[in-house]
Amino acid sequence: MRFSRSNEDRSQRTARTPDPMNQYIVGVDLGGTNIVVATVAQDGSAIHGLLSEPTPVADGPDAVVDHISWMIQGSIERARAELNGHLELAGVGIGAPGPLDTRRGIVRLAPNLGWHDMPLRDRVENAVNLNATLDNDANCATLGEAWLGAARESSIVVGITIGTGIGGGVVIDGQLFHGASDVAGEIGHTTIDSTGRRCKCGNYGCLEAYASGPAIARRAVEGIESGSPSHLPDYVQGNLSFITAQTVYQAAHEGDEFALELIQETARFLGTGIANIINILNPDVVVVCGGVTLAGDRLFIPLRREVTRRAFKPAVEACRIVPGALPGTAGVFGAVAAFKHQKASRGKS
Amino acid sequence: MRFSRSNEDRSQRTARTPDPMNQYIVGVDLGGTNIVVATVAQDGSAIHGLLSEPTPVADGPDAVVDHISWMIQGSIERARAELNGHLELAGVGIGAPGPLDTRRGIVRLAPNLGWHDMPLRDRVENAVNLNATLDNDANCATLGEAWLGAARESSIVVGITIGTGIGGGVVIDGQLFHGASDVAGEIGHTTIDSTGRRCKCGNYGCLEAYASGPAIARRAVEGIESGSPSHLPDYVQGNLSFITAQTVYQAAHEGDEFALELIQETARFLGTGIANIINILNPDVVVVCGGVTLAGDRLFIPLRREVTRRAFKPAVEACRIVPGALPGTAGVFGAVAAFKHQKASRGKS
Repeated sequence: MRFSRSNEDRSQRTARTPDPMNQYIVGVDLGGTNIVVATVAQDGSAIHGLLSEPTPVADGPDAVVDHISWMIQGSIERARAELNGHLELAGVGIGAPGPLDTRRGIVRLAPNLGWHDMPLRDRVENAVNLNATLDNDANCATLGEAWLGAARESSIVVGITIGTGIGGGVVIDGQLFHGASDVAGEIGHTTIDSTGRRCKCGNYGCLEAYASGPAIARRAVEGIESGSPSHLPDYVQGNLSFITAQTVYQAAHEGDEFALELIQETARFLGTGIANIINILNPDVVVVCGGVTLAGDRLFIPLRREVTRRAFKPAVEACRIVPGALPGTAGVFGAVAAFKHQKASRGKS
Repeated sequence: MRFSRSNEDRSQRTARTPDPMNQYIVGVDLGGTNIVVATVAQDGSAIHGLLSEPTPVADGPDAVVDHISWMIQGSIERARAELNGHLELAGVGIGAPGPLDTRRGIVRLAPNLGWHDMPLRDRVENAVNLNATLDNDANCATLGEAWLGAARESSIVVGITIGTGIGGGVVIDGQLFHGASDVAGEIGHTTIDSTGRRCKCGNYGCLEAYASGPAIARRAVEGIESGSPSHLPDYVQGNLSFITAQTVYQAAHEGDEFALELIQETARFLGTGIANIINILNPDVVVVCGGVTLAGDRLFIPLRREVTRRAFKPAVEACRIVPGALPGTAGVFGAVAAFKHQKASRGKS
């Protein structure tokens, strides 16, 4: 992605003629817990009006859509103020949980939001009176990292987002790889143990059933209940249902042996799933995003060891495995980049 | 891939001026058991001098290279005779077991051939005095099926070759996807059971350890030794070490219950590996190549059921899973296509 400017462009800019390189795009990262919105310069050089608010899931599907639109307006207002009124807008890029139909701008199913066939793109377009695009949230996080983060200047990029679920995205030569029906990159629902743990999706042995935030917490509770000595119960006043993945990282940080074991085990599960992706896609870089990266080397050292054990040597040697460099904003930057790409490819067709 | 010809081209052809669209390319498919060679029209419309001979592995690495060159000359001679002497040659495309370095034309490691860092491309070039290219055998089979076989006119194609090992290839928009270091598509060494069977590669639970030809035979022997009632021993005069995957297909065809179970189990293993690929790449088509396809619907029906159980619905709906349509020649056709692509991309750079 180059953004070179000719001298002619510069003079146009000085004369305040509309300059597409000088436009801003609003990025929206919609999650089941939070909505993040920001107004970003088309070339990624500036971010204004960054807002993060809880997703009002309990208020129903319409309330969430209204809140997104309201936050977009709020971000634009702040950005305009910060730029002394000089703000030209190209549109809105939205990242949302899937499965989606990106072409029609529809969220096909988002259980955490109670959505089914929600025409999110058009509803936002109508509410804020700007062109909008829709793409998968994990795709956007990967594209953000490929554009401005840990995977800059890499040709084949795989992103893995670990939170309530495990998502993923694939970026090849700067472009999102969507696959035949917008499903590409769903690493969370690849099988690592064909007869293993039951997953929310109904299958057995999905990576997500072992290494998502809730899965880490569940494994912690199971271990404690079956007698593993640990200080974890002290962190939640004995109420094991309050244990989260964050509790495990904190206890590990403070030296709890069982919490450390849980992280090493998580690293082996993630390493197995990542080795599979590496043997299939042979990427230049795998970017791991989400709270789990808080565990730092305690996670990444055994994770890389497991990948080395399982994947082909020339593929392991070619591939960096790194934490994301844009925590909190990768999704917003990626939604902006996805807007630019969708607009460019529609322009071509 | 279009091969339209202008009227001007046609007149050139009549006048016998060199016409690149009228040239032939020799395709070589080198396996641990057989070498297949043919002389193929650049547009895939004709195949001449098709030869298949056992790989003289026992005679050592140099003998294999000499034999390949000798077969190339033999195929060219036959093709020239069939074409009444009118044969223009563009070069030789070679498919060989990997890992490879396609850019340098080197087979890095091929245990079945006893090869280590064999500069196969240059040795063949020197021997036959024609330009040559090298690519992975499973990549070539996939490309052959995408060009002229079961995956024609599909955008995202995954090929799986099941034989002594399990290989794979990925073709996107008619071009091989090599990944960062020529490893992309190694589905045989993706994990389906992280604590499962030991694989030749040293890991545990690789798909190849369950569903390759020798793995199917091994599971058959294990079952019989542990008391499963079966007529399989009758097919090998009681010498279980003679059981091969082909024996299992034959016994299943003749109604042996245990052999049928083995095939259904194989289908579940393959379905798990293919579901992983489908959730990662979301292809339009998965082409399954190799002797295992002889089992027909006995394999494909439970295989598709397992994929449907494990992969995302929009991805399953978008994807055909079919047997290869070019048994015996997919690799040769693909090696020819790979030659054209490598030459074209070198021309660009």
